[in-house]
Parts: sequence; structure tokens; C-alpha cells
Amino acid sequence: MSYDPQNVFARILRGELPCVSVYEDDSTLAFMDVMPQIEGHTLVIPKTPSRNLLAMAPEDLTPLILSAQKVGRAVKAAFDAPGLLVMQFNEPAAGQTVFHTHIHQLPRWEDRPLKPHAGTSFQAPEILEVHARKIRAALAAGA
Amino acid sequence: MSYDPQNVFARILRGELPCVSVYEDDSTLAFMDVMPQIEGHTLVIPKTPSRNLLAMAPEDLTPLILSAQKVGRAVKAAFDAPGLLVMQFNEPAAGQTVFHTHIHQLPRWEDRPLKPHAGTSFQAPEILEVHARKIRAALAAGA
Repeated sequence: MSYDPQNVFARILRGELPCVSVYEDDSTLAFMDVMPQIEGHTLVIPKTPSRNLLAMAPEDLTPLILSAQKVGRAVKAAFDAPGLLVMQFNEPAAGQTVFHTHIHQLPRWEDRPLKPHAGTSFQAPEILEVHARKIRAALAAGA
Repeated sequence: MSYDPQNVFARILRGELPCVSVYEDDSTLAFMDVMPQIEGHTLVIPKTPSRNLLAMAPEDLTPLILSAQKVGRAVKAAFDAPGLLVMQFNEPAAGQTVFHTHIHQLPRWEDRPLKPHAGTSFQAPEILEVHARKIRAALAAGA
């Protein structure tokens, strides 16, 4: 399957669209999902273009999973969540809506249901920023 | 959190319990979920003990994600599925029921709902073997 360089995450990586970021290194970027399924819902993406995980070059997988672990620990710690759900969707039949590889990280509590994926309501950027600050603090604290 | 060496996947790795495997290398093992949420539901696990992804040693992440990509491609191809859902649960609040790191790989179709995770009905081993054969064939074909 092809890669469309006009997808939203490619535009974020080029600085053409804003994001509320929490982590960045040479190979990956992590930022708040603008339609969070739950408070703290964060995405980790590789900087190298790829449609999804199945299409990635093997050498790009290591930095992605290292960032996913690092950011995942921080997301869980930042919200003092008892669980963390990691999800990755390949193709529309699996729920993929943006065709640049991304890993979802969701804090989980037994008694708090998830909202639908890619719902209709955008979270206000100032709320996302409050959540991002908690995650950045957890990263800085070495969560 | 601690690691219980008597968990089911540790016992599978030690050969104390059976599994219907589809792939194995020095660092990872992939086998059919005995309570599949959908036909073809496969698990990929590291051989090194770890409670979940967040607790893994960084050096164990690379072989795990490489196997997840390889097996994921084969699972999708084996069932001619238009999508593949990858999930990983950390702690009970996120749905984790076996406390050895595992990555779920689920073929997805728009019109086929998933059964609940860790449901009540075990799939018959002979059915799992039919599914595993398809995945092994896809791996052998270089899917």
C-alpha cells in the first residue's frame, strides 16, 4: 500500500500542522491524540515515512519500540494509572484512520470506559497541554 | 511489579504446557491464543522473563518487535485479512491476564466483531492447528 505524504502526521513532522508534543528524539515523536479516547491518550510515531507497522523498515522498529516503552511508562506514571493499553492499527479494517505508523498509548482504569476511536470531538489544546505537562514531568523524573 | 515464573507462558516456554506454535527464534516464540477473539488470533512473546512491555529490558525489545512485524504480516496474509490489530496490555486494568509480556495480533475485517478478551471458551486444538498451518505457510512464503 502507498504512503501519502499529505497525511496529518507527515504534516505535523514537517511543522505544517501543530501538535502538543511530549517527547522527541532523532527517530521518533510523541504527542497528544487530539481526539483522546481517555485522558492522557498519547501517540508515538517514527519520523521516517511508513504507512503502518507492517510496512516499516526493520531498522526503524528499534527506535520506535524504545520510545514506545519510555513514553508508555511516563504516560502511566503521569496519570497514576493502574494500567496501560498499547494499540497499533494496520489498515482501515483494523481502525487505522491516519496512514503514517503510530502507536496508541492509553492509561487504563478498571472503571473508566474508553471513548470510541477517532470520535467526533476534538479535545481543547489547553487541556491537552495540561496533560502533556504531566507526561513531560514524568519523563523528566525518569518514569 | 514481580514476575511469577509459574505463569502460563513461562510454563509453555519451559515445555511444561503445550502450545500451537507458528514461529520461534532464539529470543521469541509465537503461538495461537487458546481463547481467540477472532480466527487467527496469535501471540508473540519474548523468551526472557518480564511481566509486561513496560518492565522489559531495552535490549529485549528489538527481537520482540521484529518478530511481531514478521508474524503480524504472516497472520494478515494467512487469513487474507484487510487489517491487522496489534494490542499489548499492561496490568489488569488494561486487560492483562497472563503476566508474561505478550503482543496480540488479530486479523481484522470491517464486518466481523471481536469476541471478548480472555473469554470463557477454549478453541479446540485441532482448529488452532488448522489456523497455525496457514500462518506457518505464510511465513514460509515470506509474507
